[in-house]
Amino acid sequence: MSAADWSQVQIARAALSRLFEPSDNIGMALVAAAGPEEALGIATGRTRCGPTLHRAFLEVLADTGHQVRTDVLTGAVARWGSRKDSLVPLRDLETVKRFGGTLLTPESEAWPAALTDLQLGMPLCLWVRGESPTTIPPLERVVAIVGSRDSTSYGSSVTAEMAAGLVNRGYTVVSGGAYGIDAQAHRSALMTAREDHPLPTLGVLACGIDRYYPAGNEELLREIARRGLLVSEVPPGSAPSRWRFLQRNRLIAALSAVTVVAEARWRSGALNTAHHAAGLGRAVGAVPGSIQSANSAGCHRLLRDGSAICVTDAAEIAELAGPLALVSGPERPAVKAVHDGLTVEDLLLLDALPVRASSTVDKLASVAGLSLPGVLSGLGRLEADKLAERSDDGGWRKTRH
Amino acid sequence: MSAADWSQVQIARAALSRLFEPSDNIGMALVAAAGPEEALGIATGRTRCGPTLHRAFLEVLADTGHQVRTDVLTGAVARWGSRKDSLVPLRDLETVKRFGGTLLTPESEAWPAALTDLQLGMPLCLWVRGESPTTIPPLERVVAIVGSRDSTSYGSSVTAEMAAGLVNRGYTVVSGGAYGIDAQAHRSALMTAREDHPLPTLGVLACGIDRYYPAGNEELLREIARRGLLVSEVPPGSAPSRWRFLQRNRLIAALSAVTVVAEARWRSGALNTAHHAAGLGRAVGAVPGSIQSANSAGCHRLLRDGSAICVTDAAEIAELAGPLALVSGPERPAVKAVHDGLTVEDLLLLDALPVRASSTVDKLASVAGLSLPGVLSGLGRLEADKLAERSDDGGWRKTRH
Repeated sequence: MSAADWSQVQIARAALSRLFEPSDNIGMALVAAAGPEEALGIATGRTRCGPTLHRAFLEVLADTGHQVRTDVLTGAVARWGSRKDSLVPLRDLETVKRFGGTLLTPESEAWPAALTDLQLGMPLCLWVRGESPTTIPPLERVVAIVGSRDSTSYGSSVTAEMAAGLVNRGYTVVSGGAYGIDAQAHRSALMTAREDHPLPTLGVLACGIDRYYPAGNEELLREIARRGLLVSEVPPGSAPSRWRFLQRNRLIAALSAVTVVAEARWRSGALNTAHHAAGLGRAVGAVPGSIQSANSAGCHRLLRDGSAICVTDAAEIAELAGPLALVSGPERPAVKAVHDGLTVEDLLLLDALPVRASSTVDKLASVAGLSLPGVLSGLGRLEADKLAERSDDGGWRKTRH
Repeated sequence: MSAADWSQVQIARAALSRLFEPSDNIGMALVAAAGPEEALGIATGRTRCGPTLHRAFLEVLADTGHQVRTDVLTGAVARWGSRKDSLVPLRDLETVKRFGGTLLTPESEAWPAALTDLQLGMPLCLWVRGESPTTIPPLERVVAIVGSRDSTSYGSSVTAEMAAGLVNRGYTVVSGGAYGIDAQAHRSALMTAREDHPLPTLGVLACGIDRYYPAGNEELLREIARRGLLVSEVPPGSAPSRWRFLQRNRLIAALSAVTVVAEARWRSGALNTAHHAAGLGRAVGAVPGSIQSANSAGCHRLLRDGSAICVTDAAEIAELAGPLALVSGPERPAVKAVHDGLTVEDLLLLDALPVRASSTVDKLASVAGLSLPGVLSGLGRLEADKLAERSDDGGWRKTRH
């Protein structure tokens, strides 16, 4: 282990990421007021928080809408104290390095600008694991596909198709590495990506990036680390917990221009991700499904309450991601009907024309409710459009196509 | 045939409804300016349109946003003239009477007020057929269910379920009497309705109410006439035409508080009905389905462009119909999770509690990232909620449920 490979701010943030749970607003306000190194000293009880700094700390909380007691820091330091003996930031940093990864901090140029939208909830750092050196693409090139663990074959197949379509358009597909929809999204992105794709998929984990959770996805997670990226805000070795899952969802939402819920039950963690995305002003898409499938009830809930836009293919998702998307994607086949562009009068006349036999101009006028001159000029237009033709007996009929 | 059974205005409107195609704006403006009886005289060339009346007629057109040439009436009279020899209003009125029906006109108290929203497009009259004397219910008790003729088993089954749910709530289900979704909506409404239902279903036809179109629905149409109502703005004997279908759709939309598209292709007449409804400020619902089914593409199109709201059951449709709906309908089962209502701290603590074995307070503080007093008070709350329990060895664990 060598401290020389890492900056002081990286080491401090690595330690703080073990001390604070994700979105610990008290801790984040302390870092905002004091900077990571001094915040670490105060959080671990090594340094006293002077009155000027304490005022600044309370101001950060007030400015971000948190109403707290003035002695909130004392309680927080006691809370953090229970973990201070387990702090081994350099060992954590070496662990991630061994996996070919690194620690991204807001001080780094590679820090995803999109995360600043989380304000006080911006993570302290991102533990990143990936074998090929790469960076997280800018917001407008990233789409999240999330959904239920217990996906149906319908959910899996729409997820696979959409992820493939997005990767073919050059997008990075983000998901949470879980069973079901998440796994399908990662898998399809990896299967589809050509060698030159900047980053087919990104897994945002609720546990340390050295852990294979869930165990059944070990092979997939290894492959994401090899050809994509795994990221987490909690340090190596950390176990996933319900709180960390919920907070992890805000990172998925913040990193992605669009969050698509492919399949979700009425009550599903994927809806939490969707609400994070909506709260950040990001686009949210929901894939409709059978109303008889409980596995799509969450998607329909989002559509009904207006939180999400209905998306049925990768092109529609790309459209939500922004103008960049408009360069590619197949056009929906426009089925043109024969009567497109006809005037009301010509449409009435077309309706009145028999398919077999034929009709006289007088009879057409009566059936269509048009004047004789109206019928004559209309027949001329319909004949020119190859919609009407003269029959051998001098009458008129519809042209068969 | 007896003229004594009918008012002069009924006879005039009956004749005009054969002379004018639906939504003939020139004809409707003439009726608005001159009244039905004088309009009939002018339209058939029996009466001259004086200059004062002619100015009023042109003003109606200008006021309703129609830009026309000042000699528009001359051309229209020539057009109408082609049909004037076929006018037999009394015979038409006797025909509908023979079927147990009548002719509703705007002058009648039973005229559906909802139709006035169509302004100049309000029909001249409604030819009504029904064996039991009944009236068309007010807007807020009427819901339209429309969709494709070539429905799938999915479309049929959701239509059947929704129509039944609406009729059970006392609504009248309106549709167009066509194959597929329309037929299923009518059929399910008739099957579900109890004897005392005011009007289970209403069919709005594009042809005369004496015709069974399409032929395969003859039995169904007879049953609608027996236990519900058939209505049309075109007189008995009239054939359906594309124009009449399109115009018929505006009547379905205008009569209904909500228009639900149960299943529709990307290009479907049902979308035309939906757009009429939206244009009238009526609620539009669309039933989602598989994105792999071309038969739901039209519904998804409406959802995506914001023209329709996602509806998945009769309760949601009733909600769109207005406050009356809120009195009945089953509640969606609310699945309450164990962690509902817990604070962040208690949630962290709950996550840290082992299910088997047990944990000490010190260890819980470290794992959960909480202070010792925080853990102790949290354990008290979780124990009270039966979420945590003491084990025999003095430690703590999750309560199994």
